[in-house]
Amino acid sequence: MNDRLRQQIAFLLEADKLKTILRRTPLTDGSRPENSAEHSWHLVLTAMVMREHVTVDVDLLRVLEMLTVHDLVEVDAGDTFAYDAGRLDTKADRERAAADRIFALLPPDQGARLRACWEEFEAHETAEARFANALDRLQPLLQNACAGGGSWRDHEVTRQQVLRRMDPIQSTMPDLWPRVLEIIEAFCASGILRGDSDPVRD
Amino acid sequence: MNDRLRQQIAFLLEADKLKTILRRTPLTDGSRPENSAEHSWHLVLTAMVMREHVTVDVDLLRVLEMLTVHDLVEVDAGDTFAYDAGRLDTKADRERAAADRIFALLPPDQGARLRACWEEFEAHETAEARFANALDRLQPLLQNACAGGGSWRDHEVTRQQVLRRMDPIQSTMPDLWPRVLEIIEAFCASGILRGDSDPVRD
Repeated sequence: MNDRLRQQIAFLLEADKLKTILRRTPLTDGSRPENSAEHSWHLVLTAMVMREHVTVDVDLLRVLEMLTVHDLVEVDAGDTFAYDAGRLDTKADRERAAADRIFALLPPDQGARLRACWEEFEAHETAEARFANALDRLQPLLQNACAGGGSWRDHEVTRQQVLRRMDPIQSTMPDLWPRVLEIIEAFCASGILRGDSDPVRD
Repeated sequence: MNDRLRQQIAFLLEADKLKTILRRTPLTDGSRPENSAEHSWHLVLTAMVMREHVTVDVDLLRVLEMLTVHDLVEVDAGDTFAYDAGRLDTKADRERAAADRIFALLPPDQGARLRACWEEFEAHETAEARFANALDRLQPLLQNACAGGGSWRDHEVTRQQVLRRMDPIQSTMPDLWPRVLEIIEAFCASGILRGDSDPVRD
């Protein structure tokens, strides 16, 4: 077996560990927390279905590739809850160190290509990265809504925090924004999301 | 919310159930069986990494889309173990009924498009479908090898059965075939795969 193939197989077997990284979002039936590998699959499917709602042209292949690798760094860095200010402070450093190790398992040209996908996702600059990030907000929102509040219920998240977090959906897929607001307002009304005195953006 | 968006969200929430469908293949650490959603993600990643080994041109976007939906029917039909002759007899009918229900959750044009991806995968005819099917053989093989025999150990699978099942790898990615044979022969030597008197193809 040549070195290139050996490196590719080693990378793919290492990636298997993403199936053991647990997120705060539950499955829709609330039975257990979702892991980052199945979450990534669900995002790829969501991209295929929701692409028509994006107001600009996007290269769907690039979006799917970005979504597939966007959480790989969690194999080392773990999942950082989006509303955990303490751990968010160290997230960038932890994830960069993880990327240095994990993408380097691949042959250098391929490692650089996949790392560039991850960096593009993280930078939120291209139309593809903005769409991919918006999907990464939408899918947990829909799952939380199905599972009776999910990670919001357990962590005393406020309406304003969720609105800020969901903002990429408003700018990327404005068709979906009224549904996002409906979900947030319903969870405020039922007391699961903590209200606040800030005005709701629309 | 318009009907189209309502249907799309309903489909995506239904798809979440794929995370609860367990396969026979264990994770590489042997800690638990893999589910079909995380398996699908791993195949998409494997396609991105192994594409260079395919001897013909393939449309990678089509491959990724096929792999993303290839197991969706299992939400109703369950996972059918590749070496379970009894249940394989009824697999096609069970999966067709599942496809009728699940893809019909989407708006008709989109349901037809995603169903066509699934049917292309099942037909094994296009270069993209052959590559996708070869990956669906390779990834469990590598995982079984890591987990000390995995689903082969538990189900008295023979060398000849595994060789037949892996054949799409030989025709699609011949570079990888020597590694596949090494794995199979090692598991025969250790007694985990049952030997037989048929000659090994190479």
